[in-house]
Amino acid sequence: MNESLVGELKEALADADYMPKSFPGSKASLRSVARHPDCVTVVTGIVGCAGLKPTVAAIEAGKNIALANKETLIAGGPFVLPLAHKHNVKILPADSEHSAIFQCIQGFPEGALRRIILTASGGAFRDLPVEKLKDVKVADALKHPNWSMGKKITVDSATLFNKGLEVIEAHYLYGSDYDNIEIVIHPQSIIHSMVETQDSSVLAQLGWPDMRLPILYTLSWPDRVPCSEITWPRLDLCKLGSLTFKEPDNVKYPSMDLAYAAGRAGGTMTGVLSAANEKAVEMFIDEKIKYLDIFKVVELTCEKHQSELVAAPSLEEIVHYDLWARDYAASLTSTPGLTPPVAVV
Amino acid sequence: MNESLVGELKEALADADYMPKSFPGSKASLRSVARHPDCVTVVTGIVGCAGLKPTVAAIEAGKNIALANKETLIAGGPFVLPLAHKHNVKILPADSEHSAIFQCIQGFPEGALRRIILTASGGAFRDLPVEKLKDVKVADALKHPNWSMGKKITVDSATLFNKGLEVIEAHYLYGSDYDNIEIVIHPQSIIHSMVETQDSSVLAQLGWPDMRLPILYTLSWPDRVPCSEITWPRLDLCKLGSLTFKEPDNVKYPSMDLAYAAGRAGGTMTGVLSAANEKAVEMFIDEKIKYLDIFKVVELTCEKHQSELVAAPSLEEIVHYDLWARDYAASLTSTPGLTPPVAVV
Repeated sequence: MNESLVGELKEALADADYMPKSFPGSKASLRSVARHPDCVTVVTGIVGCAGLKPTVAAIEAGKNIALANKETLIAGGPFVLPLAHKHNVKILPADSEHSAIFQCIQGFPEGALRRIILTASGGAFRDLPVEKLKDVKVADALKHPNWSMGKKITVDSATLFNKGLEVIEAHYLYGSDYDNIEIVIHPQSIIHSMVETQDSSVLAQLGWPDMRLPILYTLSWPDRVPCSEITWPRLDLCKLGSLTFKEPDNVKYPSMDLAYAAGRAGGTMTGVLSAANEKAVEMFIDEKIKYLDIFKVVELTCEKHQSELVAAPSLEEIVHYDLWARDYAASLTSTPGLTPPVAVV
Repeated sequence: MNESLVGELKEALADADYMPKSFPGSKASLRSVARHPDCVTVVTGIVGCAGLKPTVAAIEAGKNIALANKETLIAGGPFVLPLAHKHNVKILPADSEHSAIFQCIQGFPEGALRRIILTASGGAFRDLPVEKLKDVKVADALKHPNWSMGKKITVDSATLFNKGLEVIEAHYLYGSDYDNIEIVIHPQSIIHSMVETQDSSVLAQLGWPDMRLPILYTLSWPDRVPCSEITWPRLDLCKLGSLTFKEPDNVKYPSMDLAYAAGRAGGTMTGVLSAANEKAVEMFIDEKIKYLDIFKVVELTCEKHQSELVAAPSLEEIVHYDLWARDYAASLTSTPGLTPPVAVV
């Protein structure tokens, strides 16, 4: 934890009824915080596989999980989900898309969900002709149309890997087959995702792009906390005027085919996909590879992993292949024919 | 009941597992069907106050109500709702807007609903400048953009009285204050209505304009019946391309102010509004009054009723004022200054 921010947080909460406790220290103390007897819900916001072990500790202690760490499901899904089931622990999504789905299916009886429709802004290159992608620069990829986010996730939004990873998370969270999860480009990012019922009805969750709501809902669930319309402005569809939709182009976004294929392969493959992508994006931001090489690095890493895939991995195997994928992806900068400068389309 | 259709119905169901029984006869037999021991849910699809008494009989017998009869709530609300509560009877909406709301709030905890947003197509005159309304003909009012419906309801869609009446029904069904129910023009009729939660989240139900879904859901609720994607085509937002929204103009649609005022007055006033509108539309279709006179007839009838309003009416008083409103509205054809041909805007 960043101890320099603790003072700032306490100051901001000076007038509140609640004063947070801070537990600075090592990874061991992370695990003890996750098991703390006063705690009901653990918000897992640590980036990468580092977030996996405290999440597992929290689940074993019977705490509900407010999930903001991607690896928990994408790398850890085959291990974490049976564990959560065993400890009767609820996994509450803290990202806007899965929260949208979660909000829509509240009150769904068993088996009512037929299909999940994830919406994607389309990212920085939504309106760029596909043949121009080979020349895009880092600065271009960092221009997100709607959300203000970190560099990595903004590039993921441009490549649509963010959505491919969300497809995998949706599969683990809601048990949907990959055939029943689809992606729709929705440039305004107002509909955060949709679900379709067995009787052909569609439910959608809408709101301004604002991460506070999904985070709040993980903590208030199943209740809704009254929020002031001043600090949480009402959604005004008349002011917006229109919501638009289009099919994502799998030539522009090769991430989709890669993510669905990794998802269908299952086991350690999804963690490898995610780790390879993370490394590839880092290399792109550092200008070691070109934009389209991101897809190639991920593809080659997944291909290489195929023969070693573990269907029901242990926690150690999950962490092992995460590190392996990053190393392997990093080694690809010098792969002949990859970069510089080869286009993959 | 129309006995000539019974044969046709039985033929259509020849291959089904279920064969309907028919009970031709008088109003007394209607009430006995509504109380039939084999029956769990009564679909009340009779038009007008004639549907009120069998609905009351069904509620007293503890049957759930699949509501397709408008008067049950708009005229009968103050009488029917306490009765349904007493007999622990569920009222399930069979129209698309209230079904949309009902679908969205499944799983809402007590108090989570903050606001209801009813969508309206805007009807035949959505894009007509308001100053041209004084000259519109019956044939013009019968051109509905999205739904294929009867004459009365198509004119109601043009005047937006359909939506004003739905505001009142929403108030009775979901207990929302009139300040927390609003109308949005949504020309594509794909979002059938929306709800806003206390924490500023918006849930919407979407689908093609098709009455089968809300009717089916009243019978399957809380379950969802798997429906073939051939006979129930999937909603395809990418094919649609866009959904648009605009604020309704209360100069073009004076029905809104009239309906909210009647709703806030409560008691017998909402039934009077609905009955006066029904008579006015009939007179318009018969070319006895002009289009804008519909609003004037309703306004004058409600004004006249003000001094006699009954806040908690009996069933007899409800039926009495329904008939009174129709008679009074009919008498207005000869009111000096109303018609022919006076514009009300």
